[in-house]
Amino acid sequence: MYTLGEIAEITGAELDGDPGQKIKRLSSLASARAGELSFLANKRYVRYLKSTRAYAVILSAKDRHHCPVQTLVCDDPYLAFARALRHMEPDSDFISGIHPSAVIDRQCEIDSSCYIGANSVIGSGSKIAGRAYVGPGCVIGRGVSVGEKTALIANVTLCDGVKIGRNGLLHPGVVIGADGFGIVNDHGEWLKIPQIGSVSIADDVEIGANTTVDRGALEDTVIENGVKLDNQVQIGHGVRVGAHTAIAGCVGIAGSAVIGRRCMIGGQSAVSGHIEIADDVIITGMSGVSNSIKEAGVYSSGIPVTTNAKWRKNIARFRNLDEIARRLFKLERRSGDENGPE
Amino acid sequence: MYTLGEIAEITGAELDGDPGQKIKRLSSLASARAGELSFLANKRYVRYLKSTRAYAVILSAKDRHHCPVQTLVCDDPYLAFARALRHMEPDSDFISGIHPSAVIDRQCEIDSSCYIGANSVIGSGSKIAGRAYVGPGCVIGRGVSVGEKTALIANVTLCDGVKIGRNGLLHPGVVIGADGFGIVNDHGEWLKIPQIGSVSIADDVEIGANTTVDRGALEDTVIENGVKLDNQVQIGHGVRVGAHTAIAGCVGIAGSAVIGRRCMIGGQSAVSGHIEIADDVIITGMSGVSNSIKEAGVYSSGIPVTTNAKWRKNIARFRNLDEIARRLFKLERRSGDENGPE
Amino acid sequence: MYTLGEIAEITGAELDGDPGQKIKRLSSLASARAGELSFLANKRYVRYLKSTRAYAVILSAKDRHHCPVQTLVCDDPYLAFARALRHMEPDSDFISGIHPSAVIDRQCEIDSSCYIGANSVIGSGSKIAGRAYVGPGCVIGRGVSVGEKTALIANVTLCDGVKIGRNGLLHPGVVIGADGFGIVNDHGEWLKIPQIGSVSIADDVEIGANTTVDRGALEDTVIENGVKLDNQVQIGHGVRVGAHTAIAGCVGIAGSAVIGRRCMIGGQSAVSGHIEIADDVIITGMSGVSNSIKEAGVYSSGIPVTTNAKWRKNIARFRNLDEIARRLFKLERRSGDENGPE
Repeated sequence: MYTLGEIAEITGAELDGDPGQKIKRLSSLASARAGELSFLANKRYVRYLKSTRAYAVILSAKDRHHCPVQTLVCDDPYLAFARALRHMEPDSDFISGIHPSAVIDRQCEIDSSCYIGANSVIGSGSKIAGRAYVGPGCVIGRGVSVGEKTALIANVTLCDGVKIGRNGLLHPGVVIGADGFGIVNDHGEWLKIPQIGSVSIADDVEIGANTTVDRGALEDTVIENGVKLDNQVQIGHGVRVGAHTAIAGCVGIAGSAVIGRRCMIGGQSAVSGHIEIADDVIITGMSGVSNSIKEAGVYSSGIPVTTNAKWRKNIARFRNLDEIARRLFKLERRSGDENGPE
Repeated sequence: MYTLGEIAEITGAELDGDPGQKIKRLSSLASARAGELSFLANKRYVRYLKSTRAYAVILSAKDRHHCPVQTLVCDDPYLAFARALRHMEPDSDFISGIHPSAVIDRQCEIDSSCYIGANSVIGSGSKIAGRAYVGPGCVIGRGVSVGEKTALIANVTLCDGVKIGRNGLLHPGVVIGADGFGIVNDHGEWLKIPQIGSVSIADDVEIGANTTVDRGALEDTVIENGVKLDNQVQIGHGVRVGAHTAIAGCVGIAGSAVIGRRCMIGGQSAVSGHIEIADDVIITGMSGVSNSIKEAGVYSSGIPVTTNAKWRKNIARFRNLDEIARRLFKLERRSGDENGPE
Repeated sequence: MYTLGEIAEITGAELDGDPGQKIKRLSSLASARAGELSFLANKRYVRYLKSTRAYAVILSAKDRHHCPVQTLVCDDPYLAFARALRHMEPDSDFISGIHPSAVIDRQCEIDSSCYIGANSVIGSGSKIAGRAYVGPGCVIGRGVSVGEKTALIANVTLCDGVKIGRNGLLHPGVVIGADGFGIVNDHGEWLKIPQIGSVSIADDVEIGANTTVDRGALEDTVIENGVKLDNQVQIGHGVRVGAHTAIAGCVGIAGSAVIGRRCMIGGQSAVSGHIEIADDVIITGMSGVSNSIKEAGVYSSGIPVTTNAKWRKNIARFRNLDEIARRLFKLERRSGDENGPE
């Protein structure tokens, strides 16, 4: 049990209510019940504010007057919500030990404070640092390094030579260090190019379920500090992802692309190989980046749905867009108007 | 061996042929041999009808006159084919038992009619109901519930607290209940938001290989009855997928989206977070849904390929589409025509 | 240690330098140090040529004059680089044997020259040919066939009846032979269609991490000789991928599509079901192929990003593109110009 006063202190929010009020847990506005705390951080959910049964709501000043219950007012309610939740739901701890079914090469260095789960496998020369957690079914190759307090939840694969820093969190199905897609055409057949680089992942990196990060062809693929990758992201060989960049689900980054720091890449987007994206670039979802982006800013190319009937007509025109433009320009010349748009 | 009469009865089709004719198996029109049954359910394959060597073909009335062999006529040949195949190829059964290499916590409840495969791992407090099948290499966390007759084929990961109903079918590489992508920017770095919801999957749900369903931030991610997910689908945290919705391969659904019942979402599509899609909506492949869809119907936005030469020209125009439109409107004003399209 | 003369011989390049010069390793232009060999195969990296510290560079004739160090001149520097690297970094070998933690059914045929890794599982009736490598955590079903020298790196799943040829290379998380997405609507609910075909993969096929290839509904899904699939590719049931075709990351191929030989499909592209793509077709990244392609050539439909501000305007126009075209045609008729583009 926590109190509103305690939450106000942790979040830095201004409490309009009873600091001694006890709070059981955090819930969404729509589902909160008596004794619970909620938050409003997305205007889509304002509609649930009036009827919320939460004891108190974390929100911004502009929404406080609509709120029928106690308030915790702050500039960034989502950040305050996160801090409150982290306080109320601390990371689960584990008891150190090596499960007897784990298969660990004799030449590994496993800190005695680690947990190594059932049916996991660790190859020769690998080092697992203090308080690291290797869950069930993980396969760690040879010469791998896993930093302090890094957790591999379950069924994670780290190929030979991969290096992962501290406080990492790798979700199930993640594969780090598989061969990059290095092939060259040799008279109609593909010749494989050995992938002799590795993967170097810095500290505080979270990698979502079934995401893949390939090893470099010659030099390492690099994921810098604080990068967050969602599920089913594909990072090609030789890519560098700058510090504190976040990449949403199903994004593909082709080989040797260099992504800046503090970038945000929306879901299902694709980035071509060998290009560079500057720091602080935001790519909205379903976009395709085929050329370097040199300036910070927001970039987009995804096309939103319309009804299929309308789409069919528009697509038919799109197929002839160049012709349409040429016909327009011809008309302009006829009417003596060649100066372009008003 | 089956007879055409038996197949006619099971499928409800009208047989024009010998009811006692024995049938070995079902094959496609193009590859069927003597003694086999085939079907015609997609007009692309009409071309193979004339030369088929099948003994009989399941088809609709409009195609019966082109058919050189015995016919089984019905309204929905694809459904009839499915029923015939289900009759001729029943689900494979298994012998119950726990493989000695499985690692199962003492505090689990495993029904004696289950099969628990080699090198699988089941955490404390989990319950596996009758006739459930847990294949080799699966990792089931703590407090997980798997319903009757549900099968996890192999290398499936169910994280702590996940609930799966009856008659489920989860293919290899599926990950249910990994943390959602919950992060908030805290002065340039990402603060992780604990994901304390879980995943609740109802009955009769099939989930394709390497598909991921994240746990909710506060409340559960919910997959309702009869939902079918293809391979490599990503379902974000807090999503609700309505009953009997089918989602094709490589689709991404961002967090807190609510998908209606009986929807169909085509391959490689993306759905933004926090939006709602009504019941009975069809999204064609490669579409992007960034706003709520309030009415049933078919929606699209994917762009089909043209030759690269044509595409280059059209894309150059697309980049200036707003300017082109403005120039057109200026010409219209000059010519005194401001009433829009005919 | 290798010599420039040796590399020249292996690559067929013309050496302008000291044939006895010793070379330690291959590196990229930007990172090469003294004693290393580099290459220039992509014009994006010409900028690094002048300042390279490599002892020698593999490049084409047109770049030799800008090169400040010894040169190995050839027509295809990328191919020469690949050959040099393959010579200097031969495939790692392994010691045959079966790890005691592997669970292998008694009725398997495992060649004594194979390696079967820790915590892997092999079902009854499967055959693993000579010099094959089955890494840790792999699950191989019943009646599976793995050809000579094929390697499954780790945590690979091969479902019942799958056939894989010689010299294959399957990266972690690959799933071959899961059920295809075969469902048919039966009065509002989905009826599963048994998937009784299998997967047949020929020789020299490489399959990237977390890629999935589904089993056929009736006949086998087929991957022909020399096909290369990158990570997170999804191949639907009944697809045929022609020999020596390469498919980049995150591509989805829907069921029963037939892809020709020597095709190249760019990342994040999608191919619809039941269509055919001719031999020697190149699909650029993020493209959607919804109709058959009958002629060799390059095809595209991906849309590259612009600034979000510009994109918003263009998208608004795109939603009304059919109307815009109609208004243009009306203007043309008014001005007596109906002959289309100049």
